Amino acid sequence: MREVAIVGAGMTRFGELWNQSLRQMFVEAAAGALNDAGADRVDSMYVGCMSGGQFTGQEHLGPLMADQFGMTGVASVHVESACASGGVALRQAFIEVAAGVSDLVLAVGIEKMTDGADVTNVLATAADQELEVYYGVTFPGLYAMIARAHMHTYGTTEEDLAWVSVKNHRHGAKNDKAQFPTEFTVEQVLSSSMVAEPLRLLHCSPVSDGAAAVLLCPLDQAKQYTDRPVKIVGSGLATGSLALADRDDPAFLDSVQKSGERAFKMAGVGPRDIQVAEVHDCFSIAEVCCIEALGFVERGKGGPAAKDGFTAIGGCIPVNTSGGLKAKGHPVGATGVAQAIEIFRQLRGEAGARQVENARLGLAQNMGGSGASSVVHIFQGV
Amino acid sequence: MREVAIVGAGMTRFGELWNQSLRQMFVEAAAGALNDAGADRVDSMYVGCMSGGQFTGQEHLGPLMADQFGMTGVASVHVESACASGGVALRQAFIEVAAGVSDLVLAVGIEKMTDGADVTNVLATAADQELEVYYGVTFPGLYAMIARAHMHTYGTTEEDLAWVSVKNHRHGAKNDKAQFPTEFTVEQVLSSSMVAEPLRLLHCSPVSDGAAAVLLCPLDQAKQYTDRPVKIVGSGLATGSLALADRDDPAFLDSVQKSGERAFKMAGVGPRDIQVAEVHDCFSIAEVCCIEALGFVERGKGGPAAKDGFTAIGGCIPVNTSGGLKAKGHPVGATGVAQAIEIFRQLRGEAGARQVENARLGLAQNMGGSGASSVVHIFQGV
Repeated sequence: MREVAIVGAGMTRFGELWNQSLRQMFVEAAAGALNDAGADRVDSMYVGCMSGGQFTGQEHLGPLMADQFGMTGVASVHVESACASGGVALRQAFIEVAAGVSDLVLAVGIEKMTDGADVTNVLATAADQELEVYYGVTFPGLYAMIARAHMHTYGTTEEDLAWVSVKNHRHGAKNDKAQFPTEFTVEQVLSSSMVAEPLRLLHCSPVSDGAAAVLLCPLDQAKQYTDRPVKIVGSGLATGSLALADRDDPAFLDSVQKSGERAFKMAGVGPRDIQVAEVHDCFSIAEVCCIEALGFVERGKGGPAAKDGFTAIGGCIPVNTSGGLKAKGHPVGATGVAQAIEIFRQLRGEAGARQVENARLGLAQNMGGSGASSVVHIFQGV
Repeated sequence: MREVAIVGAGMTRFGELWNQSLRQMFVEAAAGALNDAGADRVDSMYVGCMSGGQFTGQEHLGPLMADQFGMTGVASVHVESACASGGVALRQAFIEVAAGVSDLVLAVGIEKMTDGADVTNVLATAADQELEVYYGVTFPGLYAMIARAHMHTYGTTEEDLAWVSVKNHRHGAKNDKAQFPTEFTVEQVLSSSMVAEPLRLLHCSPVSDGAAAVLLCPLDQAKQYTDRPVKIVGSGLATGSLALADRDDPAFLDSVQKSGERAFKMAGVGPRDIQVAEVHDCFSIAEVCCIEALGFVERGKGGPAAKDGFTAIGGCIPVNTSGGLKAKGHPVGATGVAQAIEIFRQLRGEAGARQVENARLGLAQNMGGSGASSVVHIFQGV
């Protein structure tokens, strides 16, 4: 396998982008990545999107996006793993460069959620139709059950969860790409309207449009494009049971643990070696479960991590310095690539007011559904 | 890159499988492939499906299928390129094994089209929503325009096209997996009901359910699983303009030519070296355009190839010995993998009454939309 680096990144602002279509957002993000690297071509593209078909009536995004980007003819493939689609696009691009099949590969994540689709029901197609959705459950309900299980087993409190949102909004307030760059207090979170008990509005990531792109090439060609490439040193993908009811412990995310172990093994490092991480906080409880499964804290000890400052900028392991899905926004297919961009910026020292000092190794973890798929990448500044 | 082989294959019958759900079809095909190879595990899976979301309300097929197959935890990714989804799943599996990321990788194509969805409109999401579908065109209309252009430029006749269907149904009558293993006469094709002039019902592939799976591993491990592995010697993927109106010549499929050239280059062979081919005959005109773009006949000379016996079993280059999409059926995501299985069987001498004598090199070409994506694989018996 060849060593692989990210040499450029571009993204749209996340938010309700009513004046930009799916294809316009794609071009903005993709052109941003190529411009960042000073590249004028790509050999191949991966487009991570949960459902162009259901959200906007458009499938076949691989060729459409190549065409719109003026690259008609290049290999271009759409990949989907629900909200982990972006992370999977990055992984496929990594594998293609590592294999030696292509040199310059673009990984783009994208989603257009505000075009009038019934968002909650479209998202629910990522859960088990026969065992879950048929009975009426949607994702806020599934994550509420995870939260209840975590509270019951480990004593995690509503205030613990509120601190995840408070911390991520503090970080996101420093990110000009964020949909909600606004700080909130614990009291505001705890008095926001109830969505699915114990999860309130300010525990939930928003409905968003957006696109994010990174350009990959073999490490030994990276200096053609940038003085500061970021190497991908680990990639791990794992699945778990689609239905929550099929899991031994609904408060623990097996797929996150497995995908993390695989990425750590490839990189030859462990969780203590990571200085900055983006994890999948679609709901505040998700961040708690993810930092446990990744080994940043012990199992059952994730609840107070935000309140204690452990995961804040300046803490032991800053998590979601971008604002996370909560504050930055969550255009589902785009999220995994946007996470990688945050780590890319951090490792290059370009994260501005939210810069983590002396960050050398970073991690991004992107998850689909209630944790049925998870993909982890580990990055190293060069 | 490591050399890669197919060591096992399995598929469901194609047809209206009202007693089998998406997950049941998957397990039948995947278990068939593992049993064929005597394997009891996989390291990774790719699921090619155009739209589980739109056809059956189920996205996130990667983890769902791993879970249903008793392989919870393995890496598993859904890929989509409309009707080329199966071929793309095979390509991603090939790249992952070639890269050395995984050893045993399963590529599965699947589609469940008869569960009540509005099939024509779901399929139309593979065309350009803004430039084509908005104005009311669907795929029979797009291929009818391609046929008219071909007739106008090259003098291709309705009878020429009818012979494609006659030939493929003759082949398909010998395939017990085929949805319509029935022979038709030219007169029957030319008197079948008009769908989109000049294309009649018997020029069109049917609406189908089905799944197909192949198991890949490094060539140097293949003998653990079978005495007769089939090597993948070439893989090419290319895109073209999504909208027909954006193409220089609507009667020529650029993406098919490019994908073929890339696969031929990797394999170090040319069209004259191929003894058996499966090409994407979603409509009879598509086979005509594909054999031209692949170089089996000169540009503009594809029309009479079926009538002349050139592409029949016993002819110069037997095309669609399985019956093709026309007779075998076209569960869109499954098609690309089923094509590979036909070539796998032919190169192992297991094609029974439709066996092509002395077949050493075979080709499978799978296409999305009206040709906006095309993927070609070249296989060699070992």
